[in-house]
Amino acid sequence: MTEVSISESPEESGFVKEIPSKSQHFAEWYTAVILKAELADYYPVRGCTVIRPYGYTIWELMQQGLDRRFKETGHTNAYFPLFIPQSFLRREAEHVEKFAPEVAWVTRGGGEELSEPLAVRPTSETAIGHMYARWIRSYRDLPVLINQWCNVVRWEKATRPFLRTMEFLWQEGHTAHRTADEAESEARLMLDVYRDFAETDLCMAVLSGRKPESEKFPGALHTYAIEALMPDGQALQAGTSHNLGQNFARAFNIKFLDSDNTEKLAWTTSWGVSWRMLGGLIMVHGDDRGLVLPPHVAPVQAVIVPILTGKAREEVLSAARGISASLTPQVRTRLDDRTEVTPGWKFNDWEMRGVPLRIEVGPRDLAQRQAILVPRVGGEKRIAPLEGIAEAVSAALADIKQTLSRQSNAFLDSHIVSAATLDEVVAAIAAHRGFVRLQWCGEDACELTLRRESGASPRLISEDAPAGACAVCGNRSRHVVYYARAY
Amino acid sequence: MTEVSISESPEESGFVKEIPSKSQHFAEWYTAVILKAELADYYPVRGCTVIRPYGYTIWELMQQGLDRRFKETGHTNAYFPLFIPQSFLRREAEHVEKFAPEVAWVTRGGGEELSEPLAVRPTSETAIGHMYARWIRSYRDLPVLINQWCNVVRWEKATRPFLRTMEFLWQEGHTAHRTADEAESEARLMLDVYRDFAETDLCMAVLSGRKPESEKFPGALHTYAIEALMPDGQALQAGTSHNLGQNFARAFNIKFLDSDNTEKLAWTTSWGVSWRMLGGLIMVHGDDRGLVLPPHVAPVQAVIVPILTGKAREEVLSAARGISASLTPQVRTRLDDRTEVTPGWKFNDWEMRGVPLRIEVGPRDLAQRQAILVPRVGGEKRIAPLEGIAEAVSAALADIKQTLSRQSNAFLDSHIVSAATLDEVVAAIAAHRGFVRLQWCGEDACELTLRRESGASPRLISEDAPAGACAVCGNRSRHVVYYARAY
Repeated sequence: MTEVSISESPEESGFVKEIPSKSQHFAEWYTAVILKAELADYYPVRGCTVIRPYGYTIWELMQQGLDRRFKETGHTNAYFPLFIPQSFLRREAEHVEKFAPEVAWVTRGGGEELSEPLAVRPTSETAIGHMYARWIRSYRDLPVLINQWCNVVRWEKATRPFLRTMEFLWQEGHTAHRTADEAESEARLMLDVYRDFAETDLCMAVLSGRKPESEKFPGALHTYAIEALMPDGQALQAGTSHNLGQNFARAFNIKFLDSDNTEKLAWTTSWGVSWRMLGGLIMVHGDDRGLVLPPHVAPVQAVIVPILTGKAREEVLSAARGISASLTPQVRTRLDDRTEVTPGWKFNDWEMRGVPLRIEVGPRDLAQRQAILVPRVGGEKRIAPLEGIAEAVSAALADIKQTLSRQSNAFLDSHIVSAATLDEVVAAIAAHRGFVRLQWCGEDACELTLRRESGASPRLISEDAPAGACAVCGNRSRHVVYYARAY
Repeated sequence: MTEVSISESPEESGFVKEIPSKSQHFAEWYTAVILKAELADYYPVRGCTVIRPYGYTIWELMQQGLDRRFKETGHTNAYFPLFIPQSFLRREAEHVEKFAPEVAWVTRGGGEELSEPLAVRPTSETAIGHMYARWIRSYRDLPVLINQWCNVVRWEKATRPFLRTMEFLWQEGHTAHRTADEAESEARLMLDVYRDFAETDLCMAVLSGRKPESEKFPGALHTYAIEALMPDGQALQAGTSHNLGQNFARAFNIKFLDSDNTEKLAWTTSWGVSWRMLGGLIMVHGDDRGLVLPPHVAPVQAVIVPILTGKAREEVLSAARGISASLTPQVRTRLDDRTEVTPGWKFNDWEMRGVPLRIEVGPRDLAQRQAILVPRVGGEKRIAPLEGIAEAVSAALADIKQTLSRQSNAFLDSHIVSAATLDEVVAAIAAHRGFVRLQWCGEDACELTLRRESGASPRLISEDAPAGACAVCGNRSRHVVYYARAY
């Protein structure tokens, strides 16, 4: 396809949004993609970022995919306050130890010093625990299955958009149950919801499993997580689900009268996914031409670029409008009819923004009653007859989804290595091989040695009571663990 | 219909959620409805409330109705930070004067005192103005049409759920334009969107118009608003739209190169609706039996209550399930098959929660292949054949919507009185007559007299340059103004 220059000024005829190479300068590539695809921008308060409309629309689509799953599994949304009294944070000992140093404190309001500072919520277990104690009286009030979408603040000096920010958007589910088994099932169910969302909507392969004791949420009995693998061999924790046992129920006095007429403590869980997962999505699928978006969360799934040249101009534009109409609303479509930039510039621009499918139509195509479909990844251009173009576009989008999943699965599969000794673990981590699968006796001393020597951390326990020997001490293994460096 | 007691304990057989009379104890009625219908609850931090799932679901449905309209008018969502540097608030003089005394300040974070305190956003004009100055370069970048859904904080000591809270949820639209005319059109368009939403989705009659100078948003050129009238004769400002002129563009240096190659200041607007409108909704439609929800924003539009008695128990339950299936997903339906409470208790409970339509089905109904539809307001029970029940339910919901709109329109119409003299104004306000329509010369002195003598404030200017004389000084009138006491 020939590029037809119809630009108004020389600067606009070339596409100047070059970005660093993903394979060679990964960190710089990440930042450049975020800025050039207009996903997010920096803000004068350190640690805070602005999510621009294109980035926020991806987040909205992610929210829809998650929220639908939460509602299908019986949860409803609610809203709890931003401010948490200092005294609440102190009620659960492990919880305060972890979060207090990260808190932003409101100490003045309405022109006065406050007698008790208010924490800007770093997470809401304590505020919600207090309310659940008010609401729950009888076993008939259980389970309570609530989620909230909100902002939280954890003090950070570094800023990496989506991955590490002082304020971030997330959802936090908080449930209360009658029995230990029910709470455990809920925690595992939500882990599975997260895994399904990552795999189906984001085409992102993940490992899922239990966290070792040292990596648990403060105050939890068990923490489960999904972990994705980034192209630099580092793991990204993308969603966590906690069985809180009776720890928060005890701290906040969440009791109920059971059917046997005795008073019991409830069992609670919490689970969360933040916009960090959007950061993972960018890293996993993007390439040297920019962002690559899975169709489920692409603000524009197909961009139509008419080649407006010569006399056929109006006819081509009208055909492009016809294509757009025939795809709407099944496919999120954008018709790019700008005249101040060239088609080639547009191609690059929409590739940078990760639009899964480009549809080109020019005078020659029109003469043959066809359009050209160009997938962002994993395939050649294909010719589609204008009649029945909706089916061709659906098929192309399904192929793109499949390609992304296949690539992500293949990358993860090829970056899980087994190591039988400490030396093998250290070598594999140093070579950026990804997840290192090893056997562990369960002793803290061996974990500390592994962490210190490899620079990696234990991400997940995938199996308990395996046959074999600890990679460090050689004693009987109690767990199979995945180690990796992590974001 | 006979109530059949199948409760397990005496306390549960009676419905004990009595509330005060709406007409006699309006303020107490409001609080009681909110607590008993489980819309919201108090929280230990003064000024903060918890929005419970049932209340939050109404808010979600309101968000959907507004968000759809925003997107249809070309806006997209984004997210700007919670924290605003103190220096930003100071840039626009009127703005800082109004908001500074209401700000909550973060002064400590990550264990350290901050060198510059951070304001928890009371509104985001300043943060967004700063970003727009970065993003806008050329006339081709305009208009910028962005909205955000978020929480904001304004220090309050009083707490009235939804109406007056320290933290509240809202949306704030922020747009930038090339010309004064475009900004003015945008401000008026969004006012119209709000009016349409209030009237269509909430069945809530409103007045719309321009605010007098004294009631403008700080920093605005013009403020437009919709005002609803509460049953106690007080006005509730339910949505505002501001033409900010070039004030914020000047303060934040939002400039663009126009097509004539000269640099110009942009023209900006902002507009917002908060969960306050949900408070208005409760007050306008509720009655002595509790909440009344318009079908558009009712979490449950139709509740099915099977009368489970005697041998036909299973058949009745199965018929109820069939009704539920035939209504889903067009109608948001709940099947109340609890056995621990009586049907009568359920009737009262769902009435308290404002469910627009109740569907009863019992053994006798089943024998006649019918169900009973009982609207929450404005009509008698009707018999609906089970065949074609979906149509009967749709028709009943449409009637309920019409009834609510008719009631609200009639109330507003009958509570607008004209007053030609100061004495008439004072008498009308004292008698809780609602909006008092009067002529005003435009002088501050006359406005101050009106405010002082009547205890009311000027809500809207409905007409400029009318024929007539000022109600206070008798000089030539320049505006027709609506006065009312206000929330």
